[in-house]
Amino acid sequence: MGSVRVLRAINGSSLVWNPKLRNPTVCARAFSSKMSPPSKAVVYDQHGSPDQVARVLDFPPVEIRDKDVCVKMLAAPINPSDINRIEGWNVSPFRFADFVSTLCVYPVRHPVPAVGGYEGVGEVQSVGSAVTGLTPGDWVIPSPPSFGTWQTYIVKEENVWHKINKNVPIEYAATVTVNPLTALRMLEDFVDLNSGDAVVQNGATSIVGQCIIQLAQIRGLRSINIIRDRTDAEDVREKLKKLGADEVFTESQLEIKNVKGLLGALPEPVLGFNCVGGNSASLVLKFLRQSGTMVTYGGMSKKPIAVSTSSFIFKDLALRGFWLQKWMSSDKAKECQIMIDYLLGLVREEKLKYELELVSFENFPVALDKALGKQGSHPKQVLKF
Amino acid sequence: MGSVRVLRAINGSSLVWNPKLRNPTVCARAFSSKMSPPSKAVVYDQHGSPDQVARVLDFPPVEIRDKDVCVKMLAAPINPSDINRIEGWNVSPFRFADFVSTLCVYPVRHPVPAVGGYEGVGEVQSVGSAVTGLTPGDWVIPSPPSFGTWQTYIVKEENVWHKINKNVPIEYAATVTVNPLTALRMLEDFVDLNSGDAVVQNGATSIVGQCIIQLAQIRGLRSINIIRDRTDAEDVREKLKKLGADEVFTESQLEIKNVKGLLGALPEPVLGFNCVGGNSASLVLKFLRQSGTMVTYGGMSKKPIAVSTSSFIFKDLALRGFWLQKWMSSDKAKECQIMIDYLLGLVREEKLKYELELVSFENFPVALDKALGKQGSHPKQVLKF
Repeated sequence: MGSVRVLRAINGSSLVWNPKLRNPTVCARAFSSKMSPPSKAVVYDQHGSPDQVARVLDFPPVEIRDKDVCVKMLAAPINPSDINRIEGWNVSPFRFADFVSTLCVYPVRHPVPAVGGYEGVGEVQSVGSAVTGLTPGDWVIPSPPSFGTWQTYIVKEENVWHKINKNVPIEYAATVTVNPLTALRMLEDFVDLNSGDAVVQNGATSIVGQCIIQLAQIRGLRSINIIRDRTDAEDVREKLKKLGADEVFTESQLEIKNVKGLLGALPEPVLGFNCVGGNSASLVLKFLRQSGTMVTYGGMSKKPIAVSTSSFIFKDLALRGFWLQKWMSSDKAKECQIMIDYLLGLVREEKLKYELELVSFENFPVALDKALGKQGSHPKQVLKF
Repeated sequence: MGSVRVLRAINGSSLVWNPKLRNPTVCARAFSSKMSPPSKAVVYDQHGSPDQVARVLDFPPVEIRDKDVCVKMLAAPINPSDINRIEGWNVSPFRFADFVSTLCVYPVRHPVPAVGGYEGVGEVQSVGSAVTGLTPGDWVIPSPPSFGTWQTYIVKEENVWHKINKNVPIEYAATVTVNPLTALRMLEDFVDLNSGDAVVQNGATSIVGQCIIQLAQIRGLRSINIIRDRTDAEDVREKLKKLGADEVFTESQLEIKNVKGLLGALPEPVLGFNCVGGNSASLVLKFLRQSGTMVTYGGMSKKPIAVSTSSFIFKDLALRGFWLQKWMSSDKAKECQIMIDYLLGLVREEKLKYELELVSFENFPVALDKALGKQGSHPKQVLKF
């Protein structure tokens, strides 16, 4: 059995993996002063279907250097983008299979082997001698998020960890970055919205969608929400209205000539969000007012967006896109942390909520199957370590 | 025969028309001090096919009030948008038949009866007593352009006329506003372009397209041009290259996976222009670089624009639209005049040229047939009065 270098934390770059080894051994550094506990991690050493290529492996202790912080992970979600990353495509909060043509141009496959997961929350277990801002017991999240959160212990330098207030449920702390932050940025970055303005979105039952409803309401904005046709549409409508939705329509309700006649006293929306594509995107466009903007952040239907020439010329619509990972790559670390704190504050005040299912890390295969949709519809799965 | 009020010039609003009258008579104002010559105008009293509904009528003299200027028109083009206006749709520089769904939402039919034409150039014939800025012999264009330029004499207040330098061919003075100004604005209003940047466009043989090539070159920009497949593609390519095009591709040349491999030393374009839609718009999108913008200003193929989700999320493209008429409606009179002078200066220096065909106003029906495409492909028809 050849030696392998130690798995150092969430960024896979320092990991040199021998795929033949199921239980790698360590060539420990000679003069390590302090070591992490052994760790368990979800690892994939090739791209493919996660239930085929991802496995839970044991890792030996790693050195905690002067500036390092050893974090015992508390919780980390299985986001659709985590699944895409294992499959080999680096995509947004939603999964698309129709990206092949783009991916020829933007091959963003991450290197393997790698540890799964992108966001999460943990508790500081121990710190290196030069660490000044964190102490054992603190709750921290990787912020901006980074890869490799599906493991029990992570050792990484102090500056990647953002200390958060502990009085929030771990499942919210674990999931605050990817979805709620997407919702918050999309409400901020495209149109200068004023209280009383309306926004329209499809995919309103997604966590981003639910966050948009609640964050819009907090800002005094009205929300028009489109959901797919479903047997429990009435229940879903009620649930979204309880969150603050002003209107909720099924797609088939909108197969009429004049959708704006349905708005009643609501203003025509100036900003729209699309995470579905196809006809559902066209419905968002139909609602938008003159010179409105539609932001695409997902493509769940796997269908392209079709836009008439007149939408651009006469209606003067603007179509844009949002990708949180790109946004965060542009030196937004501090801004990201401020927003995380704001969002967790809303969670504490019970102004921001969405459905999550905590699952023990031991049951990772079950949680993965649920996240893959193999067991019908389930809330987002959050691994509890 | 009932009386009708006098046809007062280019804006149809003061025209009260009795459609039964083929030769309207006038109820002349009692105390008119000064009258225009009688005029001939192309009038339509209902919307429909221009060769069915437009006819040349004689109009009696109208009063020239204190602030009025009587202009003898010299030339005015038949733009596709003029034809659309007669047909009943108020559209951009290109003709679309696929706008019905939009037009249900934005019914912008102009009132009838009306005089055709939207831009043109004329010579001041006489002025009212309070006119200070214009004298007989001056060349003027309506700026911003306004409706009703297809007539031999127009009487309208001084402030709608912009005096221009006379040393340009009348066919350029008559056509400088709609197409060249569209090209100029689209290069200015969407992306902050720097010398050396590239733009890409389809419909490159249109007058807007030819202007984009030349205006881009003047600004030190590179242009990548897409033309439809045609038997004379080589001739067209040579012609556009003579105007300053860096690259000219037919659509079928671009049916390859990696169009950017064709760029050679040219940078990936940051801005694209689409006046075709359908597959041709997709080719513009394929060329655009990360975070590029495509501006749609026409839809000659009558097909919608299809965009993949990934174009928005990963490639971060922005899609916008441009409509000159909307731009000019937002208090741009002065800016419009400055740009007109700039563009006519380029014409004088022979830095801006495009093909036009001057046709005597007596031959209006022939010019109209050519403009309607009934006699094959012809340069833009410009009526000479």
